[in-house]
Amino acid sequence: MTLDTTHLHAFILAGGRGERFWPLSTFARPKQFTTLFGGTPLLAQAVARLDGLVPRANVRVITNADLVPATRDALPDLPPANIIGEPMGRDTAAAVALACGLLRRDDPEGVALVLPADPLIGDVLAFRRVLGDVAACVAREPAIGVVGIAPTFPATGYGYIECGEPMETPGTPLRRVRRFVEKPDLATARAYIETGAYVWNAGIFVWRADVMEAAFRAHAPEWVPLIERPGEYAALYPTLPKRSIDYAVMEKAERLVVARGDFGWDDVGSLPALARQFPADAQGNVAIAPTYALDATGNIVAAEGDPRATALLGVSGLIVVHTPKATLVCAQEAAQGLKALVATLPPELR
Amino acid sequence: MTLDTTHLHAFILAGGRGERFWPLSTFARPKQFTTLFGGTPLLAQAVARLDGLVPRANVRVITNADLVPATRDALPDLPPANIIGEPMGRDTAAAVALACGLLRRDDPEGVALVLPADPLIGDVLAFRRVLGDVAACVAREPAIGVVGIAPTFPATGYGYIECGEPMETPGTPLRRVRRFVEKPDLATARAYIETGAYVWNAGIFVWRADVMEAAFRAHAPEWVPLIERPGEYAALYPTLPKRSIDYAVMEKAERLVVARGDFGWDDVGSLPALARQFPADAQGNVAIAPTYALDATGNIVAAEGDPRATALLGVSGLIVVHTPKATLVCAQEAAQGLKALVATLPPELR
Repeated sequence: MTLDTTHLHAFILAGGRGERFWPLSTFARPKQFTTLFGGTPLLAQAVARLDGLVPRANVRVITNADLVPATRDALPDLPPANIIGEPMGRDTAAAVALACGLLRRDDPEGVALVLPADPLIGDVLAFRRVLGDVAACVAREPAIGVVGIAPTFPATGYGYIECGEPMETPGTPLRRVRRFVEKPDLATARAYIETGAYVWNAGIFVWRADVMEAAFRAHAPEWVPLIERPGEYAALYPTLPKRSIDYAVMEKAERLVVARGDFGWDDVGSLPALARQFPADAQGNVAIAPTYALDATGNIVAAEGDPRATALLGVSGLIVVHTPKATLVCAQEAAQGLKALVATLPPELR
Repeated sequence: MTLDTTHLHAFILAGGRGERFWPLSTFARPKQFTTLFGGTPLLAQAVARLDGLVPRANVRVITNADLVPATRDALPDLPPANIIGEPMGRDTAAAVALACGLLRRDDPEGVALVLPADPLIGDVLAFRRVLGDVAACVAREPAIGVVGIAPTFPATGYGYIECGEPMETPGTPLRRVRRFVEKPDLATARAYIETGAYVWNAGIFVWRADVMEAAFRAHAPEWVPLIERPGEYAALYPTLPKRSIDYAVMEKAERLVVARGDFGWDDVGSLPALARQFPADAQGNVAIAPTYALDATGNIVAAEGDPRATALLGVSGLIVVHTPKATLVCAQEAAQGLKALVATLPPELR
């Protein structure tokens, strides 16, 4: 069976505030707007990499209401109505329920791809192929598809998905999902990787509206009114709990299939992760901004919207990030404290 | 004898480029222009603290020709002709010879104070009193006066002056100079301080034109044409060697008197010295710019002409300095390498 891509729909979830990426990510200009990676906003890259898979008219972005104007500016090729502003953050369960309601109303035979706004994808063709194969599978059978990420290191910052029996499907190998597991400690993460049976949960889901609706009805009925009346989302959102789709639905759903995505995915989830995306010089310094260094090793320097030069003298293992308003100077091993630091800042700097 | 201050003249030497203070000091805007200390340029403070001692009309500034416009802007109360631009840097011997020639021509009975442009002085009244007393002494007898600084720590960055027999003079105790010594190592500096007989050489000299001219004739005759024809300094400068007044004259001169200046002198000769001039918070951080810190201790943050906020996370012992063009991030113990780092910068950043 060939997939009819006119019935493929993408819902890009752009609701995060990215405090672990401050000051490149701020409340008013979160990470999906950064142009540090390749010169265009991550969000625009997320849309562009769907070209050839999902018609532009079928690409919707669900973001915070206050970010709708900036999102429309960043995505001039999308119909303005496709940028949907949530009145408040209610985590991914509400966003997926809203997507489900919109798909049910507008194209009940369609297949939805739910995608986060800000990861980088190295191999876009492989990415499209995997998504298309999973979409073809869920178009055929009443399962929710998940595209997991083939782990490249024992990450403790992601949830994992344990893969079960292989399925007999054409194209990308698919397996039943055995279980979703929360972020592990390092030893557990290492054990997961050794088995070869685990993938990272990257929040990429593929489903038909009827199947997702059934899963909500079975496991998370509070969200069903939003599926039934997506046009009333502004009024319904305040009544919903703040919960992730993983916790509300996925961990409990029974028919899940998973693909092992191996297409150079990187969510650059924290500032130290910048070093994975840019070359280092002979002293191990990663300069994503004009930098002059003497007796300095293993530092990361980045800037956005600020042409200043940075001079490093006798320092190691630092992250230095400039924006027009602020500079962060952070020890790489202390980067996990960034959220706590940001919480102490005055609102205009956050 | 009371000193007639209408015959007191000040020559402020503002020829340094201050590389150890980069980026607060740059080639085009050296340290004497910084307003970090009290909101007015250090040079303006150097002039203002002479009020009541030297008539404004008698205050001259000798600086680099390219800095004359900026110097006139910084000192709107001085007659523009009193800002003298050297065609090239020839160190302090040339500047003092030029001062000697100007004094000899314009007020041969006068007394000159030679002063550096950029030290901070905590007790201005004490400073004026000492200078006035030394001036009164050299007005009476044919000696060159030196105002040394009572050492507060065993500094290795200054030359020292060994004090000899006390003189019978009114006011500030004066002593004969036994010898000038070069910058010592730490052990020698400690030994100097223990004797109580040494002061720092801060480049503050007090003299009559005839006495200084005689000293040049005896020890540094190459500079005599400049003393005889100060109006031709632009043509004479290129013929002169680059030499300090200490080396050319002071170390060899025979009749020198020295006062022990104890008036809160600080030349803030390097960035770590900033910590001496500003209060530290409970974590030992010195914030001379808007700063937010978490798990950060013993850092110095400064900015000039740049309102940005600095956030410090998990870092210690750093110096972070912002200007509109550049940011320096420097380990305090590496600050002595700043000059070498600045040498690697493109000219527009130096």
